[in-house]
Amino acid sequence: MREYTITFLPEKKSISVDKGIDLLTAAIQSGIHIYNSCGGEGVCGRCKVIVKKGEYITERSGRISEKERKKGYVMACRTTPESDLTVLVPEESRLGDIEVLTEEAKARRLTGLYTPAEEVAEERSALKENIFKHGPLSTKLFLELPKPSIDDNCGDIERLFREIRKDRNIPVMQMGLANLKKLPRLLRESDWRVTATLGNRNGTTEVVLIEPGDRSGKNFGIALDIGTTTIVAYLVDLMSQKVLAAKASYNPQVDFGEDVISRIIYAQEQGGLEKLHHAVIDTINVFIYSLAKERGLTLDDITAVMCAGNTTMTHLLLKIDPSNIRKDPYIPAVNFLPVVRAAEAGIKINPRGLLACLPSVGSYVGGDITAGILASGMDDSDELSLFIDLGTNGEVAIGNKEYFMVCSTSAGPCFEGGGLKAGIRAMKGAIQAISIQNGKLIVDTIGKEAPKGICGSGIIDALSTFLKHKIIDRSGKLKENNICRIRDFEGVKEVVLVEKKDSATGRDIAIDENDIKNLIHSKGAIYAGIDVLLKESGYKKEDLKNVFIAGGLGTALNIRSAINIGLLPDLPEDIFKFIGNTSIAGAKLCLLSHEAMEKAMLIANKTIYMDLSAKASFMNNYSAALFLPHTDIELFPSVKALIGDLSVRG
Amino acid sequence: MREYTITFLPEKKSISVDKGIDLLTAAIQSGIHIYNSCGGEGVCGRCKVIVKKGEYITERSGRISEKERKKGYVMACRTTPESDLTVLVPEESRLGDIEVLTEEAKARRLTGLYTPAEEVAEERSALKENIFKHGPLSTKLFLELPKPSIDDNCGDIERLFREIRKDRNIPVMQMGLANLKKLPRLLRESDWRVTATLGNRNGTTEVVLIEPGDRSGKNFGIALDIGTTTIVAYLVDLMSQKVLAAKASYNPQVDFGEDVISRIIYAQEQGGLEKLHHAVIDTINVFIYSLAKERGLTLDDITAVMCAGNTTMTHLLLKIDPSNIRKDPYIPAVNFLPVVRAAEAGIKINPRGLLACLPSVGSYVGGDITAGILASGMDDSDELSLFIDLGTNGEVAIGNKEYFMVCSTSAGPCFEGGGLKAGIRAMKGAIQAISIQNGKLIVDTIGKEAPKGICGSGIIDALSTFLKHKIIDRSGKLKENNICRIRDFEGVKEVVLVEKKDSATGRDIAIDENDIKNLIHSKGAIYAGIDVLLKESGYKKEDLKNVFIAGGLGTALNIRSAINIGLLPDLPEDIFKFIGNTSIAGAKLCLLSHEAMEKAMLIANKTIYMDLSAKASFMNNYSAALFLPHTDIELFPSVKALIGDLSVRG
Repeated sequence: MREYTITFLPEKKSISVDKGIDLLTAAIQSGIHIYNSCGGEGVCGRCKVIVKKGEYITERSGRISEKERKKGYVMACRTTPESDLTVLVPEESRLGDIEVLTEEAKARRLTGLYTPAEEVAEERSALKENIFKHGPLSTKLFLELPKPSIDDNCGDIERLFREIRKDRNIPVMQMGLANLKKLPRLLRESDWRVTATLGNRNGTTEVVLIEPGDRSGKNFGIALDIGTTTIVAYLVDLMSQKVLAAKASYNPQVDFGEDVISRIIYAQEQGGLEKLHHAVIDTINVFIYSLAKERGLTLDDITAVMCAGNTTMTHLLLKIDPSNIRKDPYIPAVNFLPVVRAAEAGIKINPRGLLACLPSVGSYVGGDITAGILASGMDDSDELSLFIDLGTNGEVAIGNKEYFMVCSTSAGPCFEGGGLKAGIRAMKGAIQAISIQNGKLIVDTIGKEAPKGICGSGIIDALSTFLKHKIIDRSGKLKENNICRIRDFEGVKEVVLVEKKDSATGRDIAIDENDIKNLIHSKGAIYAGIDVLLKESGYKKEDLKNVFIAGGLGTALNIRSAINIGLLPDLPEDIFKFIGNTSIAGAKLCLLSHEAMEKAMLIANKTIYMDLSAKASFMNNYSAALFLPHTDIELFPSVKALIGDLSVRG
Repeated sequence: MREYTITFLPEKKSISVDKGIDLLTAAIQSGIHIYNSCGGEGVCGRCKVIVKKGEYITERSGRISEKERKKGYVMACRTTPESDLTVLVPEESRLGDIEVLTEEAKARRLTGLYTPAEEVAEERSALKENIFKHGPLSTKLFLELPKPSIDDNCGDIERLFREIRKDRNIPVMQMGLANLKKLPRLLRESDWRVTATLGNRNGTTEVVLIEPGDRSGKNFGIALDIGTTTIVAYLVDLMSQKVLAAKASYNPQVDFGEDVISRIIYAQEQGGLEKLHHAVIDTINVFIYSLAKERGLTLDDITAVMCAGNTTMTHLLLKIDPSNIRKDPYIPAVNFLPVVRAAEAGIKINPRGLLACLPSVGSYVGGDITAGILASGMDDSDELSLFIDLGTNGEVAIGNKEYFMVCSTSAGPCFEGGGLKAGIRAMKGAIQAISIQNGKLIVDTIGKEAPKGICGSGIIDALSTFLKHKIIDRSGKLKENNICRIRDFEGVKEVVLVEKKDSATGRDIAIDENDIKNLIHSKGAIYAGIDVLLKESGYKKEDLKNVFIAGGLGTALNIRSAINIGLLPDLPEDIFKFIGNTSIAGAKLCLLSHEAMEKAMLIANKTIYMDLSAKASFMNNYSAALFLPHTDIELFPSVKALIGDLSVRG
């Protein structure tokens, strides 16, 4: 088969490929990450690239406008070379480097994006001193064993177990053969002074490791948030309970599809599960290696990994076939994952170190949500609370210490910047807030950098601002106004937020009516989900004492704006708490406290999953919520006061 | 280095060896098993061979008589070739093939040597129907899982666990990653009808295996008795609880030393532990393979192995360093061995099958004794019982359901035919009984074959007969008499039992005064041990309601003879029960019943080990017992009635 050389700009990375290989695959193989929400199926139109030189075959697609086509735009997944090619990957098609967010977070005492959830979690552990009662996933104990004598002549392992059990109630204790074989020499060479690492493993206590002398001061763990889109890792000192360093990046599985469904489909291809598994494991190993190096630790110093992720992510992490998650009746292989040796999953820490995952509720409510409910503390409260994860799945949970009910609203990718013409994830240069000052549109970007696009919190703020200033009507239609220019772009109305001369991409940054419609659908789904959960559990919105909002929308979500567009119910602003990434916060809690893990299991066990597809009331509520803020504005008195009683078709 | 060829007769097996290699090593490498009690240290003199042709260098030794030397006798371990050699390995230096015993046992409905212990064990399980309550080490359950639906949508593993837990109280259940990965496909392809194999593993229940369809009818286990000298394996149907077939052979570790101490020393040599481990594992694997083949099973059908052995044997089985067992204060690495996967120890059954060992009490009271106490049933009785294992270590245990006290008397190898001039193990052709008929010595051999030597029960019977007929006095000195010829052989008096013309070896079979002295020392140690245990626990011998005698002395031990020589206390004969190999009987019980295993643990836990070396009373009792039957004949009224009140120097 003939080989062609593809050169990607602006990196000038070259790769030789066989004829018939598409440009998306070629880019992935060169290490260039390109958006492809649909997994290379030619559907989403996110993988646009510009062929600068060479011959190629491409499919025509409604996703590429006539203007773009003339400039050489093609969908990378639908284009194959017929000669050597030079291809420009434009900024807006790239998966940006999320690392910057973490660097920023580190600069702010490891808080940044993750502060609010951390603070809730820390407050929680401070308030409830018992939460650390059972110790972390792995604990180190320094033991000075009484030396054996004729009168005290039990076996080496029995002596060790006896000392470990002193003042501790450990009914079932285990130790593997590998450690047992090392024990006799190790005990004597260390003069009976050893450090035992104990692991909480599936209802038993395992002596994971025995080391000579006192090494109890050095014990570290990794908390992981494996999101569909983003992977975050914390290096945690299991002694001081502090986070020492953090890493985050895109989940490289996005190369194989942007959402869980396309990844499950990919996993069924030959070698697909293997590739998805290695993609995430390799990233985790790079994180752990560099976190350890950064803090002068060896991998042996790290004895435990605790992971929160949605159900598909944990299946892929452990290389378990996820295919039944997407087949009626939607059954995961496992919700309560067994604690295994991290090495069994390919994770490189201490070879005997453990890997645990937070339990899932079901196929579409994963350990990330269990983590979120745990981190918010709502499971410990008499008060009725709501938890909303503004991710692609848009999970909503309601409950208190007595019960939980949760649903997954399939809100779509809007809140993460997906599905929008100029949408990007929360990264430097992302527009996160919009205001009108002196009759002009002013944008605020993360890191105060030149604008690259608009992220979740930005589009919410934009819609609220447009509504307030009558740039849109309550159905989301753009209106002529004195503030900004409305133009027609290939038959669709749009408003330009940033002219190309001011943008980082060299292209206009605009919001069009399709974007607005997408956001209205997303916010409508969330609102309808909240409504159904309230009704099903027999409460009114006024009964809610706390609303926790989690997700990676940006560094700050404007609560007022979210109420104005009808994403959140019209309640006093002070009951809302934007708590950022609760998945990593929950993972950290469970890494540090076995009691927290037990609480997580209790949460997963007692949470009732409500399948919205089976609820007629959801569809009614959803339709009614497809206006700004809602068909029935009386539900939003504070918004009515702000924008007046505009009729729906105002 | 020059190579020589050694040819062993009568097999005519040849082997090339380097100069400097001794004949014992050469024989072992050729697969010829030669006695070497001392492990090739030139001490025991058991490895005599006859060089028929060739030049050699040998050490002079008092173990070879002048006559023997002239005939070409040398100690194999102290002899190296200087040319090609032809070497005859005489019958009496060979470790005989113990297989015959098992064949005999099989012919008698798998009873034979092992009947009595089996019967006790079966009686026990019949009496106490509860003993099988918890099921065998591994149990197969056929499950028809309810198919998942939207309303019953728990995960695959949770569905499996839920079904297993129905009507069963299993608090902690585990399943490894390997099985979990196979689960989703397996459940669906088998239409939710599967067989789960559950294993009792260290206080938890493990789902060891999942198979499609109903395979619950086929589940097999192996019970193992790993003795210092002999290895016995039973193939057990875990459903019907029947023994289907058995194998036995010498423990090939005897090539590296006959007793546990020489093997522990050997284990410390370079590669020694490895060799000892493989010697036993290879034998076990051959047994299992041929047992399975014989009954038309695959190795996958065998899911569990339960092993009873002394503490050193179980260390070597699991390749755990045993060196501290022989160093003051004599500490084993482990008494309560963890249940591991059989494959971890190199045992070839179902790759996920389990291996468990009966717990030891301490360094010199192993799982074989725990098994013996369990199989005898004395731990369930209010009555005071005594348990005596007439092996090299000569363990004695006293107790009832409230307590146990056990000691190890270091009785020596006499009862197994060791340390005697013409001693052999209980095998075909071994003299097992001696009587005087019409003024003549009559010998009875196992299998009614031409006599090869004398085994444990034979030497006990011989001494009793000699005493009764005044062929020996009470101190064990041979006396002129009318029945048999006493002769002087190189300064030691001996009595010829079988003339060379009638023996299978072509040599006279005789008992000399050294043999008698050895036996008196052995029986004295056992008796003194019994005495100390009685006194320490505040009982008299009349309080004993049962005396269980275990060991491989022969097919039958004459209790009357054992009382006559003062090995056993003078009590009514009907309280004694010779129950043969209790080690394999206990292993079988624990394989079949988790409750039995729990009882074994309780026994090991509550048994007090009495170190006789620290007891002055033992040495006094021992000295007093070095006469026939005892210095104080008033302790043996029935013997006094039989032989008259001969003075000690009678």
